[in-house]
Amino acid sequence: MIEVNNNFHLLPVSYLFSEVGRRVAAFREANPEREVIRMDIGDVTRPLFPSVIAAMHEAVEELASSSHFHGYGPEQGYAFLRDAIAEHDYHNRGIAIDSEDIFVSDGAKSDIGNLGDIYSRECKVAVMNPAYPVYVDDSVIDGRAGVLKDGKWSRLIYLDCDPENNFLPSLPEEKADVIFLCFPNNPTGEAISRPELKKWVDYARENGSLIIFDSAYEAFVRNPDIVRSIYEIEGAKEVAIEIRSFSKTAGFTGLRCGYTVVPRELKGTYKDGTQVALNSLWNRRQTTKFNGASYVAQKGAAAVYTPEGMADVRKATDYYLANAALIRQTLISKGYKAFGGENSPYVWATADNGEDSWNLFGKLLEEYGFSTTPGSGFGSKGDGYIRLTGFNSRENTEKAMSKIK
Amino acid sequence: MIEVNNNFHLLPVSYLFSEVGRRVAAFREANPEREVIRMDIGDVTRPLFPSVIAAMHEAVEELASSSHFHGYGPEQGYAFLRDAIAEHDYHNRGIAIDSEDIFVSDGAKSDIGNLGDIYSRECKVAVMNPAYPVYVDDSVIDGRAGVLKDGKWSRLIYLDCDPENNFLPSLPEEKADVIFLCFPNNPTGEAISRPELKKWVDYARENGSLIIFDSAYEAFVRNPDIVRSIYEIEGAKEVAIEIRSFSKTAGFTGLRCGYTVVPRELKGTYKDGTQVALNSLWNRRQTTKFNGASYVAQKGAAAVYTPEGMADVRKATDYYLANAALIRQTLISKGYKAFGGENSPYVWATADNGEDSWNLFGKLLEEYGFSTTPGSGFGSKGDGYIRLTGFNSRENTEKAMSKIK
Repeated sequence: MIEVNNNFHLLPVSYLFSEVGRRVAAFREANPEREVIRMDIGDVTRPLFPSVIAAMHEAVEELASSSHFHGYGPEQGYAFLRDAIAEHDYHNRGIAIDSEDIFVSDGAKSDIGNLGDIYSRECKVAVMNPAYPVYVDDSVIDGRAGVLKDGKWSRLIYLDCDPENNFLPSLPEEKADVIFLCFPNNPTGEAISRPELKKWVDYARENGSLIIFDSAYEAFVRNPDIVRSIYEIEGAKEVAIEIRSFSKTAGFTGLRCGYTVVPRELKGTYKDGTQVALNSLWNRRQTTKFNGASYVAQKGAAAVYTPEGMADVRKATDYYLANAALIRQTLISKGYKAFGGENSPYVWATADNGEDSWNLFGKLLEEYGFSTTPGSGFGSKGDGYIRLTGFNSRENTEKAMSKIK
Repeated sequence: MIEVNNNFHLLPVSYLFSEVGRRVAAFREANPEREVIRMDIGDVTRPLFPSVIAAMHEAVEELASSSHFHGYGPEQGYAFLRDAIAEHDYHNRGIAIDSEDIFVSDGAKSDIGNLGDIYSRECKVAVMNPAYPVYVDDSVIDGRAGVLKDGKWSRLIYLDCDPENNFLPSLPEEKADVIFLCFPNNPTGEAISRPELKKWVDYARENGSLIIFDSAYEAFVRNPDIVRSIYEIEGAKEVAIEIRSFSKTAGFTGLRCGYTVVPRELKGTYKDGTQVALNSLWNRRQTTKFNGASYVAQKGAAAVYTPEGMADVRKATDYYLANAALIRQTLISKGYKAFGGENSPYVWATADNGEDSWNLFGKLLEEYGFSTTPGSGFGSKGDGYIRLTGFNSRENTEKAMSKIK
């Protein structure tokens, strides 16, 4: 029998969202007469924009014709999309990121995991606590996490986030090689200002660290003092990779398209001290282990950058932000402590009475009939909290909140 | 500066197909008046089937509507597609593979690379020589290949294929933990019979090996004695993973959809000797580092299994097979030795005069104006050979072959 990757042996069996799904299904089965509103999973509910739909129908038609057929595309993504991203997400916002720095993919979750192929297995990884569980689980699978003791992985560096530090962690005391930062944050919904993020870029420059900056939620930022891209910070191109997605911006969760920016200025070293651009390593990884994002999805993504598409992004994110605001206000009015929900689709809440996350989850499900995501699933500092999302329909959000009221 | 994965330092800089593309581009630039026909890359050229096109338009329309919108799908693929695969590719051919054994993905290249996450880094890997370069390059990136000496990787086991053994390698003398087999083969175009494949399944059962069986070209098999699925061999479910793709079967190279079969009977061991089903490891890997294939592509793939879709698969593969037969016959009539091209879209040829692959590539490009893939790019045993593909249009194939005549 073959020897398998032993790191899987260390991982807890169940993945957070599957466990929530399982408990919701069990509740539904036990209470068939009760309606359950899913306020847990971060999945969009609004249909795709007309400009995106039209572009995808066109792309499908091209594939039906001998003369316009598209087979294998560039593993890095089509130039039409890389150029549109560079122009609209960076150049037009005063940031010098070029098409060659941009790699289109089937989504942020794949890229976060696959990036682990390019940095050393010896790297010490720092994660926010709480955080999107994938950063931790990927580190475990890749053998960078050590072993689990008292709810913490022995080789990970935890960056604690709580109301005392406004959910903005302090710089680590020991040296971190790779630092996962996510702003606007999942799950806390809190965002970061330029002076605060500059501290991290400076730390990375001083310590030779790599920041993997997950900005999947940047389209929700309304406050001009809040960071949308880490490259707004001077010197970040030499220390940071940025991960973006069309999932939350334009409703692509089922279509699968995202991108990762690896600036050519960002360097690493081999064991013999030779320097190498991470851009060329990622390019080699993607050309070897990936074959490009779906042509239809890429054509749809390019339509997001038309004037109609950009107006629709604004409308869709406004819609979800209004849901988040309603959730936040309702919870606060009922005596919960609630955070985020501004410049972010997520609200992070606690009863602040010592009740643990799964209890709080169970209570809200049973009393009010809506599901949330238990904060403990995001790390030890998430215990006592739940995450609620603005991604439901207005109708369902209002219905769920009216039950609390 | 961060320490990177040192294995990239060991890899040759250029990827085979990029290098071919570069040389073709250079030739075109130097000879702007000459037409160049690409007989090298294994990319399809025929448009997608009407049933697939209709299904994808429908899927796009669903995404335009609030009531039919689809967000995140199951990471393993939608049941409608997994069920269709199980029924048509397995049950209807007398093979007991169920939906739960099937994982839909964005393609075979991703799966081949990502499967490296689930078996131990200590595993000794065997590859056919010649072989699709990705098996070797993935093994290098993952640290299983050792170092390159005289054109061979020190930790890989090479399974030599040549005319003397009809391109069917002998069982390895040292124990192989993971064995990549590809039939019908890329690049040699040769296929395998049941008794021949049974030897490998028996070897794997005796030695506790895992076979990763790449059957991306099974739709080209016409001879009923030739294997389409490794699960036609008794006992294979306990030792083999099978990788399939809609790319060559139904023209999905740009759409991105494939699947991997990990039977629940297939077990491995952790370091402490505990047994674990590879199905559950792959499920954990995919739910953590992947977010499902594009909904539109999955709907298109399901249409491949309608009566119209299946008839169109037959027509499209017949078309490419006729191209391959023409290539094979023409080359043989001109004194080349040519293999494959029956039950396979690939023809493997040599001038058999000691001329190396890149010379042969250069000569055919300059004299006849068509590009081929140099066999040496597939491994040391490929030197002296070139690979030609039947994936071009009939017109271009005839034009290229008429130049030789």
